[in-house]
Amino acid sequence: MPMTMNGQGYQLLPVKSNDSSREDDDVSSAPSFTRRDVGRRFRLGFLISLAVITLCALFLKRDKPLLTHSPINDDDLGLDKCAAPLALAAKPPAPTNPWASLTISEIAIIQKWLEAPERKLNLTRGSDSVLSDNVVYLIEAYYPPKADALAYLAGGNAPDRYSRVIIHHGGLEFPTIKNYLVGPLPVSERTTMRLLTEIYHESEIPFNARGFVNIAELHDVFKFISSELSDALEDLFGATARGNDNDTLIASAGGPFSFDGNTRKTWFSLRRNLPGPWLLPINFWQYLDVSGTDPSLWKALKVVYNHQIFGSTEEFLQSYRNGTLIRVPEQQSSGKPEDFSWSTRKRVGTPRDLDHLPGPRSVSFAGLRFRVDQASQYVSWMGWGMYLGFDRDMGLNLWDITLKGERIIYQLAPQEAIAQYAGNDPLQSTTAWQDRHFGMGLAVRDMLPGYDCPHEAVYLPATTHSALGAFVREKAICVFEQDTGRPVTRHTGYMEGEFGAVKGYMLTVRSISVVGNYDYGFDYMFHIDGTMEVRLSASGYLQGGYWEPVQEGYGGRIREHSMGNLHDHVINYKVDLDIAGSENSLLETIAAQEIIEQPWLEDDEWGSTVIQQNITRRIIETEDEALLKYPTNFQGHYSIVNQNKTNAWGVPRGYAIHAGYNPIHNTVVGSRRLLNNANWARYNLAVSLRKETEPSSSSMWNMNLPGKPTVDFHKFFDGENITQDDLVVWVNVGTHHLPQAEDSPNTKTTVAMSSFLLTPLNYFDSDISLDSTNAILLSAPSRPGEPWGFDDYGVKQDFTCVPETPPPFEYVDPKVYDEDGRLKESGSVEDMRKMAEMYHRIKVEL
Amino acid sequence: MPMTMNGQGYQLLPVKSNDSSREDDDVSSAPSFTRRDVGRRFRLGFLISLAVITLCALFLKRDKPLLTHSPINDDDLGLDKCAAPLALAAKPPAPTNPWASLTISEIAIIQKWLEAPERKLNLTRGSDSVLSDNVVYLIEAYYPPKADALAYLAGGNAPDRYSRVIIHHGGLEFPTIKNYLVGPLPVSERTTMRLLTEIYHESEIPFNARGFVNIAELHDVFKFISSELSDALEDLFGATARGNDNDTLIASAGGPFSFDGNTRKTWFSLRRNLPGPWLLPINFWQYLDVSGTDPSLWKALKVVYNHQIFGSTEEFLQSYRNGTLIRVPEQQSSGKPEDFSWSTRKRVGTPRDLDHLPGPRSVSFAGLRFRVDQASQYVSWMGWGMYLGFDRDMGLNLWDITLKGERIIYQLAPQEAIAQYAGNDPLQSTTAWQDRHFGMGLAVRDMLPGYDCPHEAVYLPATTHSALGAFVREKAICVFEQDTGRPVTRHTGYMEGEFGAVKGYMLTVRSISVVGNYDYGFDYMFHIDGTMEVRLSASGYLQGGYWEPVQEGYGGRIREHSMGNLHDHVINYKVDLDIAGSENSLLETIAAQEIIEQPWLEDDEWGSTVIQQNITRRIIETEDEALLKYPTNFQGHYSIVNQNKTNAWGVPRGYAIHAGYNPIHNTVVGSRRLLNNANWARYNLAVSLRKETEPSSSSMWNMNLPGKPTVDFHKFFDGENITQDDLVVWVNVGTHHLPQAEDSPNTKTTVAMSSFLLTPLNYFDSDISLDSTNAILLSAPSRPGEPWGFDDYGVKQDFTCVPETPPPFEYVDPKVYDEDGRLKESGSVEDMRKMAEMYHRIKVEL
Repeated sequence: MPMTMNGQGYQLLPVKSNDSSREDDDVSSAPSFTRRDVGRRFRLGFLISLAVITLCALFLKRDKPLLTHSPINDDDLGLDKCAAPLALAAKPPAPTNPWASLTISEIAIIQKWLEAPERKLNLTRGSDSVLSDNVVYLIEAYYPPKADALAYLAGGNAPDRYSRVIIHHGGLEFPTIKNYLVGPLPVSERTTMRLLTEIYHESEIPFNARGFVNIAELHDVFKFISSELSDALEDLFGATARGNDNDTLIASAGGPFSFDGNTRKTWFSLRRNLPGPWLLPINFWQYLDVSGTDPSLWKALKVVYNHQIFGSTEEFLQSYRNGTLIRVPEQQSSGKPEDFSWSTRKRVGTPRDLDHLPGPRSVSFAGLRFRVDQASQYVSWMGWGMYLGFDRDMGLNLWDITLKGERIIYQLAPQEAIAQYAGNDPLQSTTAWQDRHFGMGLAVRDMLPGYDCPHEAVYLPATTHSALGAFVREKAICVFEQDTGRPVTRHTGYMEGEFGAVKGYMLTVRSISVVGNYDYGFDYMFHIDGTMEVRLSASGYLQGGYWEPVQEGYGGRIREHSMGNLHDHVINYKVDLDIAGSENSLLETIAAQEIIEQPWLEDDEWGSTVIQQNITRRIIETEDEALLKYPTNFQGHYSIVNQNKTNAWGVPRGYAIHAGYNPIHNTVVGSRRLLNNANWARYNLAVSLRKETEPSSSSMWNMNLPGKPTVDFHKFFDGENITQDDLVVWVNVGTHHLPQAEDSPNTKTTVAMSSFLLTPLNYFDSDISLDSTNAILLSAPSRPGEPWGFDDYGVKQDFTCVPETPPPFEYVDPKVYDEDGRLKESGSVEDMRKMAEMYHRIKVEL
Repeated sequence: MPMTMNGQGYQLLPVKSNDSSREDDDVSSAPSFTRRDVGRRFRLGFLISLAVITLCALFLKRDKPLLTHSPINDDDLGLDKCAAPLALAAKPPAPTNPWASLTISEIAIIQKWLEAPERKLNLTRGSDSVLSDNVVYLIEAYYPPKADALAYLAGGNAPDRYSRVIIHHGGLEFPTIKNYLVGPLPVSERTTMRLLTEIYHESEIPFNARGFVNIAELHDVFKFISSELSDALEDLFGATARGNDNDTLIASAGGPFSFDGNTRKTWFSLRRNLPGPWLLPINFWQYLDVSGTDPSLWKALKVVYNHQIFGSTEEFLQSYRNGTLIRVPEQQSSGKPEDFSWSTRKRVGTPRDLDHLPGPRSVSFAGLRFRVDQASQYVSWMGWGMYLGFDRDMGLNLWDITLKGERIIYQLAPQEAIAQYAGNDPLQSTTAWQDRHFGMGLAVRDMLPGYDCPHEAVYLPATTHSALGAFVREKAICVFEQDTGRPVTRHTGYMEGEFGAVKGYMLTVRSISVVGNYDYGFDYMFHIDGTMEVRLSASGYLQGGYWEPVQEGYGGRIREHSMGNLHDHVINYKVDLDIAGSENSLLETIAAQEIIEQPWLEDDEWGSTVIQQNITRRIIETEDEALLKYPTNFQGHYSIVNQNKTNAWGVPRGYAIHAGYNPIHNTVVGSRRLLNNANWARYNLAVSLRKETEPSSSSMWNMNLPGKPTVDFHKFFDGENITQDDLVVWVNVGTHHLPQAEDSPNTKTTVAMSSFLLTPLNYFDSDISLDSTNAILLSAPSRPGEPWGFDDYGVKQDFTCVPETPPPFEYVDPKVYDEDGRLKESGSVEDMRKMAEMYHRIKVEL
């Protein structure tokens, strides 16, 4: 079947190409092609040419192809049309992705199976539920055991597919949350469900640690905004929270919500109901006890206004009524209109010189060089290959990352993202978010083509499930190649073979999660030398505080009454490296100063000793020694090596973990709000034995259980031997965010980013990027003064054709499916907002 | 004068454009143009269109323009020709660059003036000189006092121009080196010369610390390779050093050459005379005393072979003759041919999938967005502006860096690059290069267009002088804009004005210095939010050692008999920040943990105290407190602020110095080879009072004077107050290079790189990148499910035209001028090699 043209051009075709002229192109012999050849290589280009020829023939009354043989100026004006930037079909090692998400229909079938009377689960659907109902919270794929997946990739049978199901048992006398394993799939008579407990350190998940089901539970919180309180707020702030559409205040809650599951409490604050409300807090907080499933028992424990603390709303109102309340000075003349447009992203300021022109755009004139198999979500590029997975908790993850046919990484997946705040107010000083709770996969947003990813990016979809149904986002992931603008290696030399350069290219796989106010960009960047960089970039809105001079020391003032509060972001990744097999060790390599006598030294002015460095290499033997910080002054590094597999020079093959930008760990240790639920954040990296029972360093309930975490990272480190065994590296990135005026309106990825690098360490015998044909080698001229000769390996860097115009910008909402797998009508933007922002911006509805 | 077409297309036109349709385009009003408009904006495009129309008319017998009004498919096939990627003319603040290099003719005139009998300097020209001659070593521009330059930029008179002249007084009874200031320029009756001593800490520069004049001095060293020694070498290594063209050995010297100027000594080693000889050492060293100007007094102090140490060459030969010499085991069968092709850059290995296609290329479809004034070497882009300077010692430097019309940096210039080695052999263990000695400006090489810089880069020339004349390299500097591939800011939101992204672009100014084996890429990368990254990338060849098991701990084995030796690179930059004027202070901002009681806390499960961070801000008052390392775990930062100038929110305006990749300082402290001549390398950064007498942290003689440095960095720090005064930040980048197999054949820029960032810190009132029109703002659809509305500010990201084919690759040698300023005939490649590699690869010439 010939490749068909796609009108949009930039959408990946879901059909495999059988264009043998590219697909099966054997490049092991010296490649060589001319500019004209490139155009001919592509069926697509050829089809267009054919169309052109036909039309031209009609138009010109001659049969000379207009674009391929322009009569005017062959080089400059008669260029071929470029091929559309479509990714060629990839060839995954096995046709099915063992880590694929469940489909809409699989989810619906499992939901139905769970709802069957014989399951006796007495379920209510999430959209109609209250807290005291039993609700299916999540249905998603459960990743197969590594041994089974590897056996499949090696040609064996596909592993049985299972689903993990989370049920909120709100209807029980002692409400709880349970995880189940349902399978094998597809649902059949063999399908059973059992409790999934072996991956957690606590057998019970307290109901008070639960995640967000629907907006209904938030409504009961508004009983704490009585009509009299509303009047007082309007008087104090000139803003209203009455449950009307035109309310000028909204609420937001701080977390964690629970210490050990016994209670559920939150500091509730009010912000202005305007764009970018995160930056517009007012000076008013309530401490609410919202424990259990019966909202009638909920109570307001405290009210704080302008540094005055009240034991109840009534006490606050009394003080307000009797005039003893000390008002915030600046807001006494509350009638004065204030311009809050600064908290939007609307363009301001004089445009800069030449900014009316679109900036440079990357074009793959000879066609895209990466391949994608959409069916299996498999991507390959320049010898790299990987499957993509996607889950509710953390979104995009990568599996079976191979280079030149050898697996380097079994799994690479973010685990958790904490944001611990500081401040001189009740909300900021007690907030330590863990965004897995909210679902960073659920929070993935469609990319803005051309803005979030370059124009030639290929987009891949992601399906996520929640208690309200399933989402499909068509542009959840983007994949693109870039010229790094810098050679990987180069040298100017004079002897034969010394002078040349290898061009630097990079493949990026990206997704962006927007958790309420913050935008997290997850980038996986692959280089041709075997190095990859894992980078996290943050943007979006700060969780701002109300500025007053007593806040000095807790952040930076960004506007008249607004500040950005000091906070740390730390994000943990699981890197399951497999270096020449799964049996690996952890190598510590440290450089330090030595003083040494050497027999060749004269006792002259240089002295008879030398002060220099040397390297100490040590295999770390047990997990307990493997909770690590980067060496002081980065004098050395940690790596995963295979002690039994050496390169040609007898050195154990390995991959090193290098610090990238902002190589930090969490500042605060011992806070009760992160007591034991994020101990991974104390280190730069840690290495533990890989276990099926330790798949992740966190869980979605960890945020609300600092005193009794569902997953207790430190329990992974129980003295086991980690030499020549299957190991996992847990690596952190993050930023110490000391906010400043330039964080307004949004934080900038130029500085709010962090990364680590994985790079071959004697994994190869020499630099593999030297195999690149996007390279040049110069040779001395035969006569002085003549231009140097060169070999560009037949790859014409100057190849130019007429690029396709990118498709017009378009952004559409994700598709939403109900519990039965039926496409729902699109909801209002306000409905989407509620779901997206949950506790972070709550419209008052009385 | 209309803009003329340049056949090569990618060369910057030295004439100013007066194309008013772009040049004087006022973009302060809302810019808006269509795809068709862009093409029309360019005279060039118009000229081409005209040509097309004319030719088409002839060919088609009709006058409809073929490319602008294609009858076939207007969007896809009938595109306009893009404008050639020529930089528009920049408008420098002042027409003359106060930091411009001397021209060839200025240099020649000064040379002539120096040679005039009335100067009584008794000069010999460098090309004909021996050590005991007086030689003009360097003639170059001397930068004007800051006050004078600022006065000129503010509209005053241009500062007087002066030249710094270095003379090697080898002909004196006590040979010495002197610096002179010659001026004012142009040479006239007013021109005088005086000693330039005020910028150095030592009044005398010892002759033994001298730089390289010509290859002749090296020849005298070969007397230490006697005919008998040659025979022994051939027997031991199967390789020859007889002074023949087909010699298979070359020599190289280690440094520093002197401790305090009293002697000049070097460890001399032999390597195979093959491409990439740095990786092919053999096991043989000589310790030579080459002090003074009389080579007849030079002697070999020691010979080392296979861990046997001999007090003289004769002792070694005796041992060889009498059979007591213990031979290197592996090389006894020296007849065996060994394949050394691995030390070249020649392509090896199977090409990767689709690597026969050229990778993506960046195209500015609507024209380049940066401006260049070639006459003054001034570059501007997106509100940034800067003058470029260039000197012998360190190459490219940047001056008067402004953003939105305000000066942020007066001078940004690399100062020194040390490379301190370790090893279990005489050469490596005693080597501590300081590449300023060799001249990193002199070592700048022409870029490989399309490989060292992207295709649309604009190249600028540099002129450097040495004792042998002057070089002009046409492609010494490149300037290009890139899409970073990542938005600067973005947020997915739902209220009006919350949802959008600003595209990330970056301007890079680059030069590459190749000091013998190593290639240093100096990058200055400017972002639209006011952040800039200063990045150093290293490539080229390691200074390899001879591998044997006793080298374990001193590096990594990379081949049968080769290793890479452990070494530290540290590179120092001078950053003369001027924040809202020249009166600035150094702010230390540190975040640390606190335990605090708060009245609003319940004594519930959360406890009555909070453990959180807070920030301590402190103005550092004196220089002595300003020798700094980055805060532990990067919990805070250092910044330059103006305490008297605040932003709109009352916060002092500042720029912060952030660590980038590999934020390291030197490992070794106390080595005699870096005793006091590179004390800057002990820190991550340091801040001192700016003084005309402290223009640089190093000098070209520092390498050879660790015991008595010409510039002693620590002497800058003499307790002076540094509040609200003119300050300089000295910042380091570098790499701890623990070599590995993948460093062969060349080190990779993917990991061998380091950077720091300069980023606004409350300098502005909010993020200035929000003024970008290469941005998008979305608005909610009027009906659910419809595509979202958007505002792209009239900048069509999908604008496409037919790009010009880049010019074919070409590399030509630099132009070389003799002492009279006359263009010399091109020398042989071997001559160029000698000059380029100096002490690093010395062909034996007996």
